[in-house]
Amino acid sequence: MLFEAVPNFSEGRDAAKVARIVEAVRAVPGVRVLDLSSDPDHNRSVLTLAGGFEALLEASAALARGCISEIDLESQTGVHPRMGALDVLPFVPLEGASLEDAARLARAAGECLGRIGIPVYLYEHAATAPHRRNLADVRRGGYEGLRKRMRDPRWRPDFGPQEVPRWGATAVGARPFLVAFNAYLESDDVEVAREIARRIRERDGGLPALKALGLLVEGRAQVSMNLTDIEQTGLHQALEAVRLAARDLGVGVHSTELVGLAPLDAVVAAARHYLGLRRLERGSILEVRLWEEAGFGASGPGYVREDEGNAS
Amino acid sequence: MLFEAVPNFSEGRDAAKVARIVEAVRAVPGVRVLDLSSDPDHNRSVLTLAGGFEALLEASAALARGCISEIDLESQTGVHPRMGALDVLPFVPLEGASLEDAARLARAAGECLGRIGIPVYLYEHAATAPHRRNLADVRRGGYEGLRKRMRDPRWRPDFGPQEVPRWGATAVGARPFLVAFNAYLESDDVEVAREIARRIRERDGGLPALKALGLLVEGRAQVSMNLTDIEQTGLHQALEAVRLAARDLGVGVHSTELVGLAPLDAVVAAARHYLGLRRLERGSILEVRLWEEAGFGASGPGYVREDEGNAS
Repeated sequence: MLFEAVPNFSEGRDAAKVARIVEAVRAVPGVRVLDLSSDPDHNRSVLTLAGGFEALLEASAALARGCISEIDLESQTGVHPRMGALDVLPFVPLEGASLEDAARLARAAGECLGRIGIPVYLYEHAATAPHRRNLADVRRGGYEGLRKRMRDPRWRPDFGPQEVPRWGATAVGARPFLVAFNAYLESDDVEVAREIARRIRERDGGLPALKALGLLVEGRAQVSMNLTDIEQTGLHQALEAVRLAARDLGVGVHSTELVGLAPLDAVVAAARHYLGLRRLERGSILEVRLWEEAGFGASGPGYVREDEGNAS
Repeated sequence: MLFEAVPNFSEGRDAAKVARIVEAVRAVPGVRVLDLSSDPDHNRSVLTLAGGFEALLEASAALARGCISEIDLESQTGVHPRMGALDVLPFVPLEGASLEDAARLARAAGECLGRIGIPVYLYEHAATAPHRRNLADVRRGGYEGLRKRMRDPRWRPDFGPQEVPRWGATAVGARPFLVAFNAYLESDDVEVAREIARRIRERDGGLPALKALGLLVEGRAQVSMNLTDIEQTGLHQALEAVRLAARDLGVGVHSTELVGLAPLDAVVAAARHYLGLRRLERGSILEVRLWEEAGFGASGPGYVREDEGNAS
């Protein structure tokens, strides 16, 4: 079973601190560091890790200890709301793992962080109550609001101390693989982006497995999308829906971006669609064949989609 | 150094014969069989192999012996023109290899086939004379014309007997990686396909590193393309050129197909173009990161483009 973990921690300015935290993770046998992206404005870094159950459990502990010793929330500032030094720790099922397996891993990691001295809130598919599923609800009020919040019986941590340390609390969750895909509009009117988001997202009767928000980013209206099942709604379907709604509202699409890593199948499906190819599978790609022949098995280490619904 | 070999042999109907030939190749250590495609109409099979210099040399010998013992050109028939049981054996440089390395491998394989008793003509980047570079020229007249041809001093085989055995002769060559990409038109008029081919191909002033022919396939006009350097002309540039010329001639593009394997970079470039992505590299793909981390090095076993020109 292979999982992805995408920890977000509250240091994105001091490269030496970030490096020490990442090195502690990299030293764990069986853990692969796939990506690191640090944002000075948000003062926040996002790591992408892959590994098995035990390896990621150990990596979570190493990461938590690193964040505790390097980050002091009493002095940390940044644009991004956060409630912990290690702020969010989501687990995602990849090859051979289910969403339930990822939730088990999240609970095990949460327990482990609790023993280290971090108050832990389980969220999404690992949540212990319906009102704690949504990450935005869990983090509301941030580090500064934690003290008051923990007195509320509905917001007691799932693991760890029932008081607030200088490293705050951590939200640990399980969620399906998602593709973060943004479309920038030829407009600075955020209301247009919000209207497009409403027209295309599943919650309001649009495309299945598509979440969308309207934002203003770098002075440009942006439709920010999460694709939670690319077999239901792929990159090209999402983009064409944005283009259609944008045309209807009299604006153009300027450009798009992928945030983080995209699964190969999403890229292949988009190429197949736009090129009008009768057939294109990952097996049509030279490198994939070479990787398969080198012992990666029939499909390569792809991601596995869960069977449960994941609307909202 | 990694190479690809794409042998074409003159058996595409008898599955048992094809299987015996392929098994002999698969038994060679270090050789990976990436693809096999058999065409009963053409009575021809195309194998895609990958491996190092020595492994592919040994595979070439195994393949030649298999073709000699399984295929008798005195009785073989099919739509496709052919001059040998093992008809064509091109070598292509992949990771770490140059086109000159592939030409060295072609010469070594040619010598080896000659010792087995096959007349060998070296072609393209392995050719020993300018008039023998073009594969169509080398194969002109096919098996039936070989006897007369060998009497011409300009067409003596480079290796092997100077007479025609029942398994004919083999063209052994070196060429850059190419992507075979066909566009089917909403028309059965082959002249339209030929006119489009003329407008888009490099030879007639069109797109660089693009070869094109007009054909009639399955009752549909087809623009058959070879892309010999996808950094110069990728799938989307070729397709958009076809679409533009077709529109100009009043026909639509029905669908497209890739023949054989496409390099990952070609698929990624097409997806990036049509999705309007600010950035998409092979490193943006989850599986590629996993493969890299598993020890495939910085770029994975991609293909290497040669530095020499390859027009025509």
